[in-house]
Amino acid sequence: MDMDLSQDVTSLVRALVDTPSESGSERALTDAIETGLRAHPHLEVVRDGDTLVARTRLGRAERVVLAGHIDTVPANGNLPSRLDGDTLWGLGSCDMKGGLAVLLHLAATLPEPTRDITFVAYECEEVSADRNGLKRLAETRAELLAADFAVLMEPTDGEVEGGCQGTITVDVTARGARAHTARAWMGENAIHKMKPLLDLLNAYEPRRPVVDGIAYREGLSAVFASGGIARNVVPDACTISVNYRYAPDSDLAKAEAHLRELFDGYEVTVVDASEAARPGLHHPAARAFVRSVTDVDLEQAVELGKVRAKLGWTDVSLFSGLAVPAVNFGPGDPTLAHHKDERVSLSSVASCEKRLRSWLSGD
Amino acid sequence: MDMDLSQDVTSLVRALVDTPSESGSERALTDAIETGLRAHPHLEVVRDGDTLVARTRLGRAERVVLAGHIDTVPANGNLPSRLDGDTLWGLGSCDMKGGLAVLLHLAATLPEPTRDITFVAYECEEVSADRNGLKRLAETRAELLAADFAVLMEPTDGEVEGGCQGTITVDVTARGARAHTARAWMGENAIHKMKPLLDLLNAYEPRRPVVDGIAYREGLSAVFASGGIARNVVPDACTISVNYRYAPDSDLAKAEAHLRELFDGYEVTVVDASEAARPGLHHPAARAFVRSVTDVDLEQAVELGKVRAKLGWTDVSLFSGLAVPAVNFGPGDPTLAHHKDERVSLSSVASCEKRLRSWLSGD
Repeated sequence: MDMDLSQDVTSLVRALVDTPSESGSERALTDAIETGLRAHPHLEVVRDGDTLVARTRLGRAERVVLAGHIDTVPANGNLPSRLDGDTLWGLGSCDMKGGLAVLLHLAATLPEPTRDITFVAYECEEVSADRNGLKRLAETRAELLAADFAVLMEPTDGEVEGGCQGTITVDVTARGARAHTARAWMGENAIHKMKPLLDLLNAYEPRRPVVDGIAYREGLSAVFASGGIARNVVPDACTISVNYRYAPDSDLAKAEAHLRELFDGYEVTVVDASEAARPGLHHPAARAFVRSVTDVDLEQAVELGKVRAKLGWTDVSLFSGLAVPAVNFGPGDPTLAHHKDERVSLSSVASCEKRLRSWLSGD
Repeated sequence: MDMDLSQDVTSLVRALVDTPSESGSERALTDAIETGLRAHPHLEVVRDGDTLVARTRLGRAERVVLAGHIDTVPANGNLPSRLDGDTLWGLGSCDMKGGLAVLLHLAATLPEPTRDITFVAYECEEVSADRNGLKRLAETRAELLAADFAVLMEPTDGEVEGGCQGTITVDVTARGARAHTARAWMGENAIHKMKPLLDLLNAYEPRRPVVDGIAYREGLSAVFASGGIARNVVPDACTISVNYRYAPDSDLAKAEAHLRELFDGYEVTVVDASEAARPGLHHPAARAFVRSVTDVDLEQAVELGKVRAKLGWTDVSLFSGLAVPAVNFGPGDPTLAHHKDERVSLSSVASCEKRLRSWLSGD
């Protein structure tokens, strides 16, 4: 299959949508993209599994990454694509073949950017982390991702979403002593012992810190409750799992310490955890990026809400782990991701392409 | 197999223990008991499955029931029996072949009691209620159980345990609204909503009413907690199951109404329930029973703690359902029931037999 990456970006989106690429089945589309990239001699192309890296090697003072995933969630009766005026409907149109089209079109058509660029198109973002192509590169070939700044082109409705909050989940367990419920006073009820925890969760005031100028909002949520042995037995154990989303002015160690202090008196076990990522928008390449895509300076863009916090955890934190500041920025309404009726406006794709081109061609 | 029910009650216990009768496998022992009972022409014997009823038909003014189950829990390396001085060790020695030996020995050796007696030896008490032989008789042949008073010979350490508390379990559910935990404020956390329920359970003061002279003690215990969808989702439902043990001055309808009032604001679903049974000790046959087995009048026996409340639910409530007042009374420490090291003192078996003989031979 041939795929001309220099074709108009709006027709390129459609070609990408109409080439299925569910997670684990990206090969055909990856092959087409690889051939398309290799048609442009200004790019050095590396393939790793179904993940592609294409780089300019111009010796510029700065290097930036544009990254996007190739895969989609499973089809849901939403292929092939359908064009209705400016709106392109279909699987992956929003998440994230709109952004991917911008990335690939820029790769093909910007032979002499003012910043060196590393374009990354990767596999398996929509499934478990151990299959994620970007994570694999970060762990095994980190040198391919070295840069001063990275833009992950997930749908953000054309806003800049800086950094991402971290997440940690702990099991909070109370112990008691079994007894027959007919003689409940002879036992210690572990479910009843969850009262102080629930008092605390209900009274907790999540922090709303400003980090690098951007307002974050933390959250502390019980996500699972379990306990009990039989209907006639006072239970000797109860566990409530609590998920904490913490802002990037903290880190995993501090977040865990905070939870252990809060839940003092209970058994606390960490069951999963991911680092936060600072937005890092004060780097010159990042400031220039914000100016190009929002038309105003960083401080004003923050004030206007054009630059905002990423509250959910995303792959930007993989860049953060490599000490590369990163943001999310791409066309498409993020709340439509994974929906049967996902869609993207072609004008938003074109606008995104134009803004990034301006950034990558300017000073 | 022959079993002489008129042999010394202490040797009879041992013969019963050494004839295995796990629930569902009572046939061999039931056959032996049936033959033993039929050897005594003063008894009218009816067999129903592996449940036996043997009655005197003397036309006395009062009729009483002595009942006990034939089955045991599964063996646990505790057969055959072992005699150590006065102590007989082995499966079922405590629960309840000690009481069963007393019952069968009295059946064989009291041809002319002053009260007519219905002896019941039944199957499958240790397993689910639908297999219980006494329950089956109560439902299908209630006339066989008609009486003025009943004694269930479960181990009570030789004390009289009157009536039994009722039990009701309800699922108490809170509803909320799902959201991503990164935006927890957009949802309503159903686990967090369990706070008022836990406040209530921790503050609850169980009633300790006196019923027919006997002190009961209620209990309200959370027995199961469940809820949750995923580590990154604010849960929209949480259920805590609560078991309520209520004294026999109340009934099931009142107990349910009490829980619905307490848990107002939550969804409340009844998941199981059993009626309480009043001790009914004011009946003349019951008063005479208490005097015989405790050597003092009912009021004094209560004061001395020789007559006390049955807090757990037992088969006495099956008699209560037939309007027959009933108590638990038998040799053996009830806390040893179902333990690998269960045992009974032979002198307590002999003492129990002597006291019941006195009651059934006196006025």
